[in-house]
Amino acid sequence: MSICIGEYLLARLSEMGVRHMFGVPGDFNLWFLEQTIREGSINFIGCCNELNAAYAADGYSRLAGISALATTYGVGELASLSAIAGAYAERVPIVCITGAPPLPAMQQRALLHHTLADGNYENMLNCYREFTVAQTRIEPTNARQEIDRVLRTCWIEKRPVYLQLPSDVAGVRTEPITAPLDLDFPASDPTQLARAISRVSDRISRASAPAFLLDADAERFDLAQLIVLLAEANGIPMAYLIPAKGVIDETHPLAIGIYRGAGSPPEVRQAIENSDCLICVGTRFTDVATGLFTHQLDSKSIIDLQPFGLRVGKESFNAVGTAELLSGLLTKNHRTRPFLAYLGPRSVARGEPDANASFTQAAFWPCIEKFLQPGDVLVSDTGTSFFASSNLNLPEGTTFIGQPTWGSLGYALPATLGTCLAAPERRHLLFLGDGAFQMTAQELSTILWRDLNPIIFLLNNDGYTIERLIYGADSSYNDINPWRYGQFSAAVDPRERVMIHCVRNEAELQSALRATDDSTRPHLIEIILPRMDAPDSLVRFAKKAAEFDFPQLLEEEIKQIK
Amino acid sequence: MSICIGEYLLARLSEMGVRHMFGVPGDFNLWFLEQTIREGSINFIGCCNELNAAYAADGYSRLAGISALATTYGVGELASLSAIAGAYAERVPIVCITGAPPLPAMQQRALLHHTLADGNYENMLNCYREFTVAQTRIEPTNARQEIDRVLRTCWIEKRPVYLQLPSDVAGVRTEPITAPLDLDFPASDPTQLARAISRVSDRISRASAPAFLLDADAERFDLAQLIVLLAEANGIPMAYLIPAKGVIDETHPLAIGIYRGAGSPPEVRQAIENSDCLICVGTRFTDVATGLFTHQLDSKSIIDLQPFGLRVGKESFNAVGTAELLSGLLTKNHRTRPFLAYLGPRSVARGEPDANASFTQAAFWPCIEKFLQPGDVLVSDTGTSFFASSNLNLPEGTTFIGQPTWGSLGYALPATLGTCLAAPERRHLLFLGDGAFQMTAQELSTILWRDLNPIIFLLNNDGYTIERLIYGADSSYNDINPWRYGQFSAAVDPRERVMIHCVRNEAELQSALRATDDSTRPHLIEIILPRMDAPDSLVRFAKKAAEFDFPQLLEEEIKQIK
Repeated sequence: MSICIGEYLLARLSEMGVRHMFGVPGDFNLWFLEQTIREGSINFIGCCNELNAAYAADGYSRLAGISALATTYGVGELASLSAIAGAYAERVPIVCITGAPPLPAMQQRALLHHTLADGNYENMLNCYREFTVAQTRIEPTNARQEIDRVLRTCWIEKRPVYLQLPSDVAGVRTEPITAPLDLDFPASDPTQLARAISRVSDRISRASAPAFLLDADAERFDLAQLIVLLAEANGIPMAYLIPAKGVIDETHPLAIGIYRGAGSPPEVRQAIENSDCLICVGTRFTDVATGLFTHQLDSKSIIDLQPFGLRVGKESFNAVGTAELLSGLLTKNHRTRPFLAYLGPRSVARGEPDANASFTQAAFWPCIEKFLQPGDVLVSDTGTSFFASSNLNLPEGTTFIGQPTWGSLGYALPATLGTCLAAPERRHLLFLGDGAFQMTAQELSTILWRDLNPIIFLLNNDGYTIERLIYGADSSYNDINPWRYGQFSAAVDPRERVMIHCVRNEAELQSALRATDDSTRPHLIEIILPRMDAPDSLVRFAKKAAEFDFPQLLEEEIKQIK
Repeated sequence: MSICIGEYLLARLSEMGVRHMFGVPGDFNLWFLEQTIREGSINFIGCCNELNAAYAADGYSRLAGISALATTYGVGELASLSAIAGAYAERVPIVCITGAPPLPAMQQRALLHHTLADGNYENMLNCYREFTVAQTRIEPTNARQEIDRVLRTCWIEKRPVYLQLPSDVAGVRTEPITAPLDLDFPASDPTQLARAISRVSDRISRASAPAFLLDADAERFDLAQLIVLLAEANGIPMAYLIPAKGVIDETHPLAIGIYRGAGSPPEVRQAIENSDCLICVGTRFTDVATGLFTHQLDSKSIIDLQPFGLRVGKESFNAVGTAELLSGLLTKNHRTRPFLAYLGPRSVARGEPDANASFTQAAFWPCIEKFLQPGDVLVSDTGTSFFASSNLNLPEGTTFIGQPTWGSLGYALPATLGTCLAAPERRHLLFLGDGAFQMTAQELSTILWRDLNPIIFLLNNDGYTIERLIYGADSSYNDINPWRYGQFSAAVDPRERVMIHCVRNEAELQSALRATDDSTRPHLIEIILPRMDAPDSLVRFAKKAAEFDFPQLLEEEIKQIK
């Protein structure tokens, strides 16, 4: 029996493991949404707005490996664009489906609402082209091939893709599906693979101090297990850039911690910068990952593994999959060496508790570290939350989610809607500031409405502390309206599910943490913190950022002081 | 004494009449924001997020004639892109200023946060190019010329423009300003102008039934007064497309009402469609403006005035300003004719009141019509609010603001932040639905925090009624979580300024309207309405939209019924 093109798309998404689709209805996508709920295998999660829906899709994809977003033409898809650019930057696969005007109207350049009313139907696609790895307008003549091509690209490249589904095309009939979508990774070129294995193996054997340095791609391409096996077989220590936090178990004896250039722990810095065979997996040496380019690596020591190729010294291999390479290396016997640098559990530094002083992050995070359980999902918003939580020691099987590269305030709350739906059996902890909360606050509504139960830590430090640390500590542009966050949560929670806690000291925090034993309900724990309270790593980074961004300003201020 | 480039930009914005700048701080724009508050003539209004800030800038520009938006690179500017595209579609000038990374970092393709970490610094600009009429990256070598060029284009074309201000460039010193920014419209070509005046004058003289048909450009280019004078001098009736509602006083004897194709009042339809000299001012015959292309105009009768040129029959004039043309026509004596079609005040239709039935829009809007005062500013969100309020008879001097072309849900609430700041002496009435409210709800916070006092009518009809009318009346994707809107408003209002009213019948509405006599405080009036309650004009439009968007679907459903 024939099926509709919209149903074809839904079936392909199902094959890839999509069980929830995020979005907002609009006239051009209503039929597709109707097909979704009638077909029944994908649950449509309506969000309050499109930016939030895209962040939710991002969070979902982090755990489910893929996600889908349904918006309407123009107004909807552009509102989610920033989040899609973020997914590109962080390498998160999202299938963006825009319900577009009917195909004849676009072909005739009709002056429709949700457009510039100038007959231009290329501008939205042009924008998405900048932040997706494949794009198409689905037409009856190309639907099956184009859907398959674009979805496969999303799966293989682990980045967002863009499908324009004209409202009328969703209902056009096509043949039923006979063969599954090809989701196999392209096989390596045998000659190049063999040569690459030999080269890398040789380098490892000759090295006196090999080391792994991982970035997020190690997780995106599911390489962590192979890396750990290779590390164990050869006694190779593993460090990671901040975007790869949690990708390998931090309790592993060979996991030595985060490398961030000059700001690294001395033993990590030494292991990485003095390595004579540094196996980099997907590394991007961004400002945030390197403490503003303070890394000092010897390019001659680097073996640079990227998703579909590698570089060893001056030699490039352009058709070698990393998984096959690592598997091949596992079959080799290398000179083993005892790497005994395991440092034991590291603890978040804390100051001396002062009963009269304000509660601070230095007191807060050690409590959180003790509160963590194996298998937790941590979602941290950009700002003090991300910088501080990246210093936590994570128990086994913990997932750590943030936006270290894109760094958009407001990401984490809607992303948690996605993570909760992708892994309802796990405990989800969200850390965010008050400024970030206000950006996307309404999506708390959907979390509560959908019976999800995250534990939300709202670090209320009265404004944009991360900006204050960079510049304008007391300037009004870094102030925000101090909401009543508990009341806010109750207002978007007509079924009165959320438990609200306000914390001003450690005793109150411990009491709130104990209350989360009731995991049948979500918890909002508001922590009142001083304005300028922040982890040292962020204070240092912010100072460097100010120097980087505003060189003359600092000179002028020094002049004024003189 | 020299000034900084950031200060130069601020001075130019001041010259154009900008007194408030909307935005969100981010590391790359902090210095520019600091310059703003130190310079003091432009008030920075921090918003909860960038989409809302851009909507606020749009609302501000509608009344002030120009506005400014300050965001940070990547994450911020992309989040506001949808609103900027809307400003392009509706022809609203906004100066978009993005704080970009320091120029050397961009030139060296540094891997920075808020980018894709691939060294590409063209992608944001490429997106903005689609929705702005001028763009530039400000560099020390071109700063003054480029700032002046881009700002002038914004002023002349009345559409958004885009300035990338690298964080370090804001502080580079330049000479002080000596000459004012050239904001004069380009003068018409004298020969073409004279010929155009003669042609149009001739057509008017020969016409037996001339008529004006106005679109929003009549307002954007400040042509209303000239049009009215010309209409009065020659007894020409004036109709308008929906985007031009309120551009001329609806109480004027020659103002005959809205033309919307087959859905027009019969006398308006007859005057426009039977005119033998239809002077169109900036008209765009969009789906929304024409009841989905039901307009029937004789192209031979049309004189098409566009901002910088016109077309009379097959003859085009490409260097004629409309204001000069209209002024020229005012000097001509045309055969006068008595147009006596003035229809008297029209009233919004209302059903018979039923004491037991739910309160409905049919009962609500006549009360609002009586409540209106000369000089009011009405802001209506897309959905039932816009369609219904466009049927109101407006008193003299009323401004009517919406997004008839772009049609983005959630526009109106943040736009009202802008309108209130642009004209604090006027009364601002905001009409929006519950679905729209949830999209941008947090910006209510800024309205309350900034001591603004709009009257907000929240039409709570339990979900996306406009979508339900098109398709999926009972489908779950059109449902939303029913917030407690009063409690929500209180939560974002720590200073307890807002007066909250919940209305379920006409008596309660009247009581709430009386309470607004206290104009020293903002009012939130929540109106509880039935789900499918909507003005007839929207019901008809929605049915046509469904047929237009989903032709096969309706056929299939008819088949199923058979």
